[in-house]
Amino acid sequence: MSTLDELPLREELRGKSPYGAPQLDVPVRLNTNENPYPLPEELVARIAERVTEAARELNRYPDRDAVELRTGLADYLSRTAGHPVTRAQVWAANGSNEVLQQLLQAFGGPGRVALGFDPSYSMHALISRGTGTGWISGPRNDDFTIDTEAAVAAIAEHRPDVVFICSPNNPTGTAVAEETVLALYEAAQAARSGRGEHGALVVVDEAYGEFSHRPSLLPLIEGRPTLVLSRTMSKAFGAAGLRLGYLAADPAVVDAVQLVRLPYHLSAVTQATALAALEYTDTLLGYVEQLKTERDRLVRELRAMGCEVTASDANFVQFGRFDGAAGSHAVWEALLGHGVLVRDNGVPGRLRVSAGTPEENDAFLDAVRAVTKELKEKSEA
Amino acid sequence: MSTLDELPLREELRGKSPYGAPQLDVPVRLNTNENPYPLPEELVARIAERVTEAARELNRYPDRDAVELRTGLADYLSRTAGHPVTRAQVWAANGSNEVLQQLLQAFGGPGRVALGFDPSYSMHALISRGTGTGWISGPRNDDFTIDTEAAVAAIAEHRPDVVFICSPNNPTGTAVAEETVLALYEAAQAARSGRGEHGALVVVDEAYGEFSHRPSLLPLIEGRPTLVLSRTMSKAFGAAGLRLGYLAADPAVVDAVQLVRLPYHLSAVTQATALAALEYTDTLLGYVEQLKTERDRLVRELRAMGCEVTASDANFVQFGRFDGAAGSHAVWEALLGHGVLVRDNGVPGRLRVSAGTPEENDAFLDAVRAVTKELKEKSEA
Repeated sequence: MSTLDELPLREELRGKSPYGAPQLDVPVRLNTNENPYPLPEELVARIAERVTEAARELNRYPDRDAVELRTGLADYLSRTAGHPVTRAQVWAANGSNEVLQQLLQAFGGPGRVALGFDPSYSMHALISRGTGTGWISGPRNDDFTIDTEAAVAAIAEHRPDVVFICSPNNPTGTAVAEETVLALYEAAQAARSGRGEHGALVVVDEAYGEFSHRPSLLPLIEGRPTLVLSRTMSKAFGAAGLRLGYLAADPAVVDAVQLVRLPYHLSAVTQATALAALEYTDTLLGYVEQLKTERDRLVRELRAMGCEVTASDANFVQFGRFDGAAGSHAVWEALLGHGVLVRDNGVPGRLRVSAGTPEENDAFLDAVRAVTKELKEKSEA
Repeated sequence: MSTLDELPLREELRGKSPYGAPQLDVPVRLNTNENPYPLPEELVARIAERVTEAARELNRYPDRDAVELRTGLADYLSRTAGHPVTRAQVWAANGSNEVLQQLLQAFGGPGRVALGFDPSYSMHALISRGTGTGWISGPRNDDFTIDTEAAVAAIAEHRPDVVFICSPNNPTGTAVAEETVLALYEAAQAARSGRGEHGALVVVDEAYGEFSHRPSLLPLIEGRPTLVLSRTMSKAFGAAGLRLGYLAADPAVVDAVQLVRLPYHLSAVTQATALAALEYTDTLLGYVEQLKTERDRLVRELRAMGCEVTASDANFVQFGRFDGAAGSHAVWEALLGHGVLVRDNGVPGRLRVSAGTPEENDAFLDAVRAVTKELKEKSEA
């Protein structure tokens, strides 16, 4: 047996820990923005049917280009996201993490840099580093919105190769205005590196897009060849276990990721399961509506009990404000003591709670009330 | 619509094409080393059962550490590959391609180099480049075996960070002798970079291990902390569509890949399907025995008709010798004309045929006879 330090590991990985939320066995798990509603039993049966068909040909490699699945995803976007797209504009991979990794392998990598606006989805920075892409943390306002002028200035200064915009933003819940995305895209064009006719790639991560009060930013890809919209079936389709992420963009972007994707990256069972889920889009989007209502209730009730709550367009809510990082960690621990697991994303003084079922949300709100009281009594003692 | 050239693509990707064998609709497909035997219907039903269970919790993220699956794979190796291993020594990902990519992200990458012995599995070089790792093509004898002395000298000269040994080697079929692997490991230790206590990582790619006349090289990982054995369920388990690759090594290597793996990389349906297949190991290894018999028949019959055939320990056979690259391409095309698709791996004068069912192999052998006759008549005309 060896130790990690004795291995010829890359220097920048030494002393690091694997990414991932603690997986704890707790009655109410509201820490990873999972959809609390299991797939309907009818859909489970349809998945079994589709997987049975796929399993009968499992000795063969899967469709390398996932043509049927990409067609289904294009239809879904065309129908629900306000803009018609075709299969040639859509690409799918094992979770949006793999989609983002492929984009960075094609457009980032050694000698190039990506820029995002922290706090945001921490995998943007991690996957950038994992692909040898430099990372620049751009500015965000105190209320977690993006200051368009400051963001444009950051792009002009750093001339990144890839810009990440997460909307609705994880972990804050904040949606980004269309005008801001357009301004950042223009700035990314102006910061052209000379590496192609077009400027930097702008990736709009809409993992939580279906939960937003605002329409999707999908229509913006029209006429903007380096604007990429990234999506996932993990949240709105209640399929975090499936690992199915996808993107919509100019067909040339799809051609580009095909140069770096591992061949046959998407298994036949994954493709079959995703296709079954797409057949149940309307049912699943019904759950999304319930979750939006619950999300809005969480915002309202947390505010009513005096919390500072960031406006949310996602299936989660960022709340506080606790006394710095120590304060939020103490509340995180106290909530865990009440059987409720939320997420400490490292935003000082804030925690993030996923919208669960009405019962789970009640349990969470009760726990917050109890914890607030306990902490108040403690501080007065 | 944009063109690929107008995008800010990485320079080294410009003008490249996506990797992958042509996917043609042909009666006899013997080009991608797939297992010709579909999974038994009992196993298909068990997959549906296991996937149904998984689908009922698909709204939750999958087990990030794939504990049950890694335990099952460790049991399989312990039982069939001549050496006991535990779950802590095993890691799984979406195909051995992703396993190799994770190894290169942890131990290769920018400023580092990998060395392999070409011709070999071309993804070793491609994934190296895709992770920013330099690639050095080491020497191989004319009969496609590895010259231990020359290989040791190449390692001493280039001081690579990662060494790839493919055994049985794809596309030649050649197995590598244990003594050679031991000598290369020692050379890799001696070429220590100063980056850790141990020398370079030595990856033994045993994707076709179950088809070999020789025992697995798995026992060699004992006491050799940078020796990694990579395997796949694509071939011996008849599950190319599943995309399940795995490795066995010192637990520290497993810790290392967890620093670079995308979180939740392995879907719940993939884990469920792989677990079902592991329950049918004995049945599936029965098919492997049939394929070994057919592979040996292919070698025998091709030699009997005057072909030069490389000794094979895999589920495929390299044959020739045709007149250079043009000659092998002409034969490839002529065989396609007879409804048989084989693989032109770019080894001049040689082609590769996968062992199919007895009927498929008969069709292939008939086609070779016919093509040989046609070409002979043509050259005499």
